[in-house]
Amino acid sequence: MSEQTHEKAITPRAEDYSQWYLDIIAAADLAEYAPVKGCMVIKPYGYAIWEQVQKILDAKFKQEGVQNAYFPLLIPERFLKREAQHVEGFAPEVAVVTHAGGEKLEEPLVIRPTSETIMYEVFSGWVHSYRDLPLLINQWANVVRWEMKTKPFLRTTEFLWQEGHTVHVTQEEADAYARKMLAVYEWFSREYMAIPVVTGQKTDNDRFAGALKTYCCEAMMQDGKALQYATSHNLGDNFAKAFNIQFLDDQNTMQYGWQTSWGLSTRSIGGLIMTHSDDKGLVLPPRMTATPIVLVPVFTADNKEEVVTKAKELADMITVQTGYGIRVDDREHVRVGEKFFEWEKKGVPLRIEYGPKDIAAGHCVTVRRDTGEKTIITIDDNFPSAIKAVLENIQSHLYEAAEQRLVANTVEANAWEEFVAAIEDGKFVMAHWDGTTETEKKIKEEIGATIRCIPFNQKREEGQCIKTGNPSDGRVLFAKAY
Amino acid sequence: MSEQTHEKAITPRAEDYSQWYLDIIAAADLAEYAPVKGCMVIKPYGYAIWEQVQKILDAKFKQEGVQNAYFPLLIPERFLKREAQHVEGFAPEVAVVTHAGGEKLEEPLVIRPTSETIMYEVFSGWVHSYRDLPLLINQWANVVRWEMKTKPFLRTTEFLWQEGHTVHVTQEEADAYARKMLAVYEWFSREYMAIPVVTGQKTDNDRFAGALKTYCCEAMMQDGKALQYATSHNLGDNFAKAFNIQFLDDQNTMQYGWQTSWGLSTRSIGGLIMTHSDDKGLVLPPRMTATPIVLVPVFTADNKEEVVTKAKELADMITVQTGYGIRVDDREHVRVGEKFFEWEKKGVPLRIEYGPKDIAAGHCVTVRRDTGEKTIITIDDNFPSAIKAVLENIQSHLYEAAEQRLVANTVEANAWEEFVAAIEDGKFVMAHWDGTTETEKKIKEEIGATIRCIPFNQKREEGQCIKTGNPSDGRVLFAKAY
Repeated sequence: MSEQTHEKAITPRAEDYSQWYLDIIAAADLAEYAPVKGCMVIKPYGYAIWEQVQKILDAKFKQEGVQNAYFPLLIPERFLKREAQHVEGFAPEVAVVTHAGGEKLEEPLVIRPTSETIMYEVFSGWVHSYRDLPLLINQWANVVRWEMKTKPFLRTTEFLWQEGHTVHVTQEEADAYARKMLAVYEWFSREYMAIPVVTGQKTDNDRFAGALKTYCCEAMMQDGKALQYATSHNLGDNFAKAFNIQFLDDQNTMQYGWQTSWGLSTRSIGGLIMTHSDDKGLVLPPRMTATPIVLVPVFTADNKEEVVTKAKELADMITVQTGYGIRVDDREHVRVGEKFFEWEKKGVPLRIEYGPKDIAAGHCVTVRRDTGEKTIITIDDNFPSAIKAVLENIQSHLYEAAEQRLVANTVEANAWEEFVAAIEDGKFVMAHWDGTTETEKKIKEEIGATIRCIPFNQKREEGQCIKTGNPSDGRVLFAKAY
Repeated sequence: MSEQTHEKAITPRAEDYSQWYLDIIAAADLAEYAPVKGCMVIKPYGYAIWEQVQKILDAKFKQEGVQNAYFPLLIPERFLKREAQHVEGFAPEVAVVTHAGGEKLEEPLVIRPTSETIMYEVFSGWVHSYRDLPLLINQWANVVRWEMKTKPFLRTTEFLWQEGHTVHVTQEEADAYARKMLAVYEWFSREYMAIPVVTGQKTDNDRFAGALKTYCCEAMMQDGKALQYATSHNLGDNFAKAFNIQFLDDQNTMQYGWQTSWGLSTRSIGGLIMTHSDDKGLVLPPRMTATPIVLVPVFTADNKEEVVTKAKELADMITVQTGYGIRVDDREHVRVGEKFFEWEKKGVPLRIEYGPKDIAAGHCVTVRRDTGEKTIITIDDNFPSAIKAVLENIQSHLYEAAEQRLVANTVEANAWEEFVAAIEDGKFVMAHWDGTTETEKKIKEEIGATIRCIPFNQKREEGQCIKTGNPSDGRVLFAKAY
């Protein structure tokens, strides 16, 4: 695979953003369409990003006391039907197993589109007393939702995710926990993915099927469109009542449990790609790759052994002293220029060039992927900390660029024409809304913008709905979205 | 969950081995039957063992140059049919999706029972030149095989596994690679799971559907039955021809690729349970748990704070200096005796008891799960290395006990009555066989024993088949099996 050259040029963003996205995925060898409708194959270089997501979030969840478990892929159809809103939301998009082992099944089984129903049926046997709570469970799994319009990472029939599911003693505790896990996603997005997000609550129209409240992180892509990055739901006692999750409280009274669920999927990789990449290819934040540095030794047939030996020594020194992973690209049959080009397309944050002249001079050449800046760094006692500083600078520079874009492209609108113009200009628009689903749908039909969320972080002020002029008790975030 | 007490006594092995196995799983809170036929829920304490399996094997695979990727769950039925033996082997046990998104599918999709077909269809687009080889891909995934008789971990309709799939330039290289990965499984089994295995080749009758040769690890359970622990297949060019995996060799000639596949599943956890556990509960080798030590502070309401603080200091000291994970069980509403009982059932290798008298005396009490041996250890500079030595001793002691059992219960048989008696006595029996599937099947029908493998590690000697008296060119391993 490493030998496959992607001759196809990357379409510039300005020309065709959607094609650019697909070209980046091909050029960086992240994924390809599978020979199964709506599915993708996540290739090794793309899967490594998902492994990084898993590593970071899994450690964080464990630190928060969440335990991993595994529940069946197949769910009896009748479970899905127990919570009325839930089945209404998911029934139209499930894949159904009707035959197995050569026979027709007595009851069809659906492939999990999400696992509330199968998990909560089981939870009802786990929860007996307030002492069993909170129950904090997470699952890393594949899910299937029959989507009509698919796009790699952003929307695929099968996708990978983690789904957390908890049970609490009180509604307040459950709500606080749903908010807490949203804060974990926000932390992950900002600190690791280098993606600023707007956090808030979804409107009733856009709530998770069966939830009381849905909280979300919304990120702005380079075309100004919003991407829902992760969601966390306060499920109230809706599912507890449907699946009979009850416990004896400390007063010896039987109570229904209060629940949350929260998930982040391979969709986040789509957001990562679209936030940082440029017309030359993928751009990865240093914290989202296990090998943020590629060292390219520059050698001829005559001096290969010596140069590669020195390069490996340098690589070891960097890894031991900074903890950053590093790849030494000593392939013989690929020219140095092609290597530079390949790693640029693949978004490796920092390239180090190292040849006989550099060795003689006691320095190396570094090239940043984000700015293209070329620097000669002396290899002395300060060298590892200099490399570390560059990588940290790349990480924060990517975040700042995304943050500036978000700030610069978020506007308030107070009149309909102004609102429409801003939406068509690809902005995030804060505007007043009368709180009705009717108005929300009308706006979507007319200009294709949806309410992304009611942001947490805003001064609530009264006003008049941008569409109807009816009273509004605060602004909401409108945008076109993926 | 932690509060759920498993009042049910564990059935002794001598009384009912099969019930003992189920009782251990319940008592240690590893898994439970799911409300879906043939499926199980892997509970947090059981899933933590699988995470340990993943962590160890994944690091080893990566060290060997294998890359992880992810392929679709759903496979078009026609792919399965491309390799004649493969479809014959798997078609009877697949689950079939016939409807999705509210409509009947044009072509049914099967849930992967294994991924050769979907992966190799994609590989044919990845492999072009000998420079693309070897292609070394692994996937951590769930698979579904419609089994009639199921048992937690050992045989479930859905199970978790890793499946490695490789493509090589020559048949010799592919065969060597299949053997190499079998050696990785053997290493993992011996060094981590503390399970000795017999490695060898399967007979033609027992080969993987579509393979040229299947290599395996067979372990002996405490009832003398064999458990196939992991397999590795030399697939020859069977699939390469069916899926058109071709490459230009270094002479510029088009060649078919030579392939391997190899897998280890959650079944291995069944083997782990059955190898080491006793009538008191689960026994875990220290290397198979992230927290091989539980520290139980012994306190009253009056001195809790002081004792727990000291206990946590001791725990931190052990973790920092030995690297072993440790759990401090400071729950208030559970009595100390119940805690001892709980962690014994859950197989934690080493328990440390630590109360005010111990603190005053500058020592602690340790209790080994494997032998029950109670020791007072002084807390001084040598303390961490003493703890480390005990854990290493538990690891090797468990291995040696299993090894002794394997050696003591492996016999040679040269006459039919002797053979039958040994099989009925639960032995691994090395006996001559005439090499025909007919004889193999006849023996299975008559006494329920199967050929587990043709062991690698034996002096090949000519003889007469134990059943037919026909010539044999070497002994094979017979046993009853899971």
